[in-house]
Amino acid sequence: MEEKFSINDIRYMARALEIAKKGEGSASPNPMVGAVLVKNNEIIGEGYHKFYGGPHAEVYALKEAGQKATNADIYLTLEPCSHYGKTPPCANKLIEAGIKRAVIAMVDPNPEVSGRGIELLKEAGIEVEVGLMAEKAKELNEVFLKYITSEFPFVYLKKAQTLDGFIASSTGHSKWITNEKARLEGHKLRHKVDAIMVGIGTVLADDPSLTTRLAEQKGIDSLRVILDPNLEMPLDAKIINQESTASTLLIVSQANLENNADSIQKKKEKILAKNNVEIIGVPAEKNEILDLESILKKLHDLKISSILLEGGAKLSYSFLKKGLVDKLYYFIAPKIYGGNDGISSFCGKGPKLMSDSKDIKILDRKFLDDNILLIAKVKEQ
Amino acid sequence: MEEKFSINDIRYMARALEIAKKGEGSASPNPMVGAVLVKNNEIIGEGYHKFYGGPHAEVYALKEAGQKATNADIYLTLEPCSHYGKTPPCANKLIEAGIKRAVIAMVDPNPEVSGRGIELLKEAGIEVEVGLMAEKAKELNEVFLKYITSEFPFVYLKKAQTLDGFIASSTGHSKWITNEKARLEGHKLRHKVDAIMVGIGTVLADDPSLTTRLAEQKGIDSLRVILDPNLEMPLDAKIINQESTASTLLIVSQANLENNADSIQKKKEKILAKNNVEIIGVPAEKNEILDLESILKKLHDLKISSILLEGGAKLSYSFLKKGLVDKLYYFIAPKIYGGNDGISSFCGKGPKLMSDSKDIKILDRKFLDDNILLIAKVKEQ
Repeated sequence: MEEKFSINDIRYMARALEIAKKGEGSASPNPMVGAVLVKNNEIIGEGYHKFYGGPHAEVYALKEAGQKATNADIYLTLEPCSHYGKTPPCANKLIEAGIKRAVIAMVDPNPEVSGRGIELLKEAGIEVEVGLMAEKAKELNEVFLKYITSEFPFVYLKKAQTLDGFIASSTGHSKWITNEKARLEGHKLRHKVDAIMVGIGTVLADDPSLTTRLAEQKGIDSLRVILDPNLEMPLDAKIINQESTASTLLIVSQANLENNADSIQKKKEKILAKNNVEIIGVPAEKNEILDLESILKKLHDLKISSILLEGGAKLSYSFLKKGLVDKLYYFIAPKIYGGNDGISSFCGKGPKLMSDSKDIKILDRKFLDDNILLIAKVKEQ
Repeated sequence: MEEKFSINDIRYMARALEIAKKGEGSASPNPMVGAVLVKNNEIIGEGYHKFYGGPHAEVYALKEAGQKATNADIYLTLEPCSHYGKTPPCANKLIEAGIKRAVIAMVDPNPEVSGRGIELLKEAGIEVEVGLMAEKAKELNEVFLKYITSEFPFVYLKKAQTLDGFIASSTGHSKWITNEKARLEGHKLRHKVDAIMVGIGTVLADDPSLTTRLAEQKGIDSLRVILDPNLEMPLDAKIINQESTASTLLIVSQANLENNADSIQKKKEKILAKNNVEIIGVPAEKNEILDLESILKKLHDLKISSILLEGGAKLSYSFLKKGLVDKLYYFIAPKIYGGNDGISSFCGKGPKLMSDSKDIKILDRKFLDDNILLIAKVKEQ
């Protein structure tokens, strides 16, 4: 595929991918996009999609290049849009600017518009080449791809464990298993996603704040989603009594939401009186486990493109078992719990045969001083 | 420390350490030793300690150098011996050969002879320098060091687990968690140690052979030690009915060994009638757990300098808890068991606080395709 492209093509597309990544954490649920304008082997304009609803990458690049854009080549990590959304279609802008050639990493994954931007360019006589560094572009926008091609957000699962696989001791004690650098990586993950999800058990056990705390830059707080089928949220829980730019969303069972019992209604009122707290209901199985697919669909409807599962061995178990985990972040500390009565990563029945356990593909390994981070995806069975 | 040594000194000592390692698996319970003779900046003789009871490294090096050894420098990874053991003392041989200068990585750790070889050389007017690359030399002979300075052998613990910490499923199924390369590394460990130890539970569950199977070279089988307090060994177990150059040693409780009950006596006779099988007794606690210190001491008396703990989550637990593990080999497969009912690495009560778990120091990491091997030691608490 890459044979028809020159070394320079690869270089400029790599640059476009590099700058696209700057939109991480703010472009969502729009994709991260990078654009590089080149003429006479010189970059004359660059741009990336900075924030949701803001100008597209192409707009910045064209603005920087000005009149020079005529007869230039453009490198785009994603097919230009062809529809009048929050901004006018970029394909038309490229045509108006007199672009000669467009090299595009991947087509728009949105089935409703896919290919139409390319078609417009071609009809206008622009030379179009598609597929350069497509794998990298897909990886960059894996969250957007999942979001736009399915009804679910992209699901990250984070685990922090001892070498022998425990996330807490028999008494539930877990502070701290991993080192400071590993915990900072955890906050970077929070910064990157649209929502963080924990079960009510984690709130009751740890009373976490689930805000984003980064060292150098200001972290962006993400929506906090608490699965709380029976509305057990304590009124003094940190998570509903703190200063944060993001909201907290309690998901309760539909039956409880519609229950007119005085105690439930009063609790609901008291919780809703807090700042930035909302409650929604979803169907629950009879053992009061909320239906995960319904939850994911509701979050998708709320334009949540990615969630980070942070707490709860039972919650993790259900997500993993149902094949709903897209990417794993496994932090391993150089510690041995040295017993079999601690809390494991996943709470529930495992397979009878080891050969039926879930195979994962390790995508990346990082060494955070003496801690190890494995980034992996679950292989399709 | 290394400041008084030249680059050439370091180079030749590195070479001596390199060739010393060739004795791994065969020199034991003697140390691995390398000797390099140098004159006019040229190596004129080399040697290493090839096998237990065989000639020392110095002998080979002097033989290769012949008359040229006069006025040469010698690089030794260990202080030369000064006692008439299985071979005449090497210190005397170096003096007779007219060596001018001896650079020695470390003194003999054996408290009975430590320093005496160096003294002999100095008295004969040989210039002696000690301590170059001492850490590397100690690491090379960590097994010998433990063996000679304590009453126990060096204990390796091997674990092969899923990422989430399980060595078998709820049904005990474990074949195979790790990949072929990881299993080959396991056989290399067997090759390296003097004995392999498992609990009778592992024999009953897996019927292992515990022989050494290497790909390129012939593996050396190690003594197989089975902790079998109640003499439950099945008469048809593979481990006592196979062809092997090594013996199998059953360790039973002293009480059972001395029990005159007909059934036990008959079983003992039948087992001892097998080829290469022996039985010894050690004291047991009242719950029939054998006293580990007594076992290690008995093995030390049998000139076993290193053992590899291979099987049994209970056995591993007891060794770890008592601080008897010297080095860990942790193989991690890219698999998630995804439950909490599997068999963990260590079976027993863990600490109440995570902060009381055992800290380990990771010494080395290897990537065996998609499997990970962590080599670590337990930090002193």
